[in-house]
Amino acid sequence: MIRLFVPEDLAAGTPVGLSAAQAHYLRDVMRRSAGDEVLLFNGRDGEWRSAIATLDRKGATAAPRERTRAQSPCADLELIVALVKRPRLETIVEKATELGVARIRLAVTRFTQDGRANLARLGAIAIEAAEQTGRLDVPAIEPPAKLDAILSAWGERPLIFCDEAGGGAPFADALMRLSVGSTPSVSILIGPEGGFSAEERTRLRSLSAVVSASLGPRILRADTAAIAALSLWQAVKGDWRP
Amino acid sequence: MIRLFVPEDLAAGTPVGLSAAQAHYLRDVMRRSAGDEVLLFNGRDGEWRSAIATLDRKGATAAPRERTRAQSPCADLELIVALVKRPRLETIVEKATELGVARIRLAVTRFTQDGRANLARLGAIAIEAAEQTGRLDVPAIEPPAKLDAILSAWGERPLIFCDEAGGGAPFADALMRLSVGSTPSVSILIGPEGGFSAEERTRLRSLSAVVSASLGPRILRADTAAIAALSLWQAVKGDWRP
Repeated sequence: MIRLFVPEDLAAGTPVGLSAAQAHYLRDVMRRSAGDEVLLFNGRDGEWRSAIATLDRKGATAAPRERTRAQSPCADLELIVALVKRPRLETIVEKATELGVARIRLAVTRFTQDGRANLARLGAIAIEAAEQTGRLDVPAIEPPAKLDAILSAWGERPLIFCDEAGGGAPFADALMRLSVGSTPSVSILIGPEGGFSAEERTRLRSLSAVVSASLGPRILRADTAAIAALSLWQAVKGDWRP
Repeated sequence: MIRLFVPEDLAAGTPVGLSAAQAHYLRDVMRRSAGDEVLLFNGRDGEWRSAIATLDRKGATAAPRERTRAQSPCADLELIVALVKRPRLETIVEKATELGVARIRLAVTRFTQDGRANLARLGAIAIEAAEQTGRLDVPAIEPPAKLDAILSAWGERPLIFCDEAGGGAPFADALMRLSVGSTPSVSILIGPEGGFSAEERTRLRSLSAVVSASLGPRILRADTAAIAALSLWQAVKGDWRP
């Protein structure tokens, strides 16, 4: 069944408005009409089986009928990724959403070539991926910040540094050794295409919360590295194990 | 340094021809000229530091000077992936190359919508990814074949079936339990966007060589699933552990 994210509160019988894009998708792409059912979620109130109430050229509304899933808290898994070129950044946002991150932070590093990101577009990609993957929430995407500033404010939260220079332990071993509680909080850091600078690498290694980890003998593009690291986390420490 | 794949034999002092695309890349994109160095590999003779001998509008040649890396055998890691839509299939070929597969087989399944693939284009993507990732070889890409035919000919080689219906063991646990020798041979099977049919799933589960594995509670797109499964294999059983 079609799943749609809405920002409004969801409660039985109270119709909510759908966006123009959602109305177009329902009407023109999926050929739905008033009375058909969709699933709605908003990141707070769980997932609701809902009936399309109105659907025409001007827009659409849907009325929640029955809650099909209760809201469950998202694991505190954060991806910090250097601003890479647009297609790969969009891939990263889509995949990180499928892989259950709570938050994506965009970092401007020494070798980042462009400090800008289209947050509206990235947010739309995250919503679409959340709808498709079956999540009950959408990851937050934070505006770009300098890696220096991020590290200056760093505390004790574990930060897995995917060190493309090969200095770290094999990723799986690093994960096994990482001591996390029953509700683990962790951040994973992925560098830009040109890698981190020597100064950035030295600074990262000097932080007590940083765990250096290696993603093998081949050079991985930033999107591959992000997907690999998040998959490994979920498989070994995260929610891929019941 | 720029790495280029060539089909010819590589030996010290014997110049080899580069393709028109490689000549264009060296001359117009990377602004190289005769005398500059590149690294050449062909999947058989290791990697050679080579000097560009000729470079003009008609083409390019390069002469191997010194072998920088000896050829090492590629692990016998095979990806069998259902034919999915072109952009995602191309992502899979690029990423599987970075993740060290020896061979990619394209499968036509019950819910595959199109039985064709542009093998020339996929081959070019694999070559470019191999050049970029630092491999000494390029994975083979086999023409599409029916999943039924592939399974009919299956022997004892372990086949990890990424079961999106959630029937399998958590992927990391399935890997731990898998008994493989010191030079493991394994195949990983990724289904189409619509999943496998009930008949395909029943057949897969009936094969003694098949290990069903789960990639977590969220629905993953085919490219995400392929990257996740290959990363997990390399991290737990493959060459990400020295």
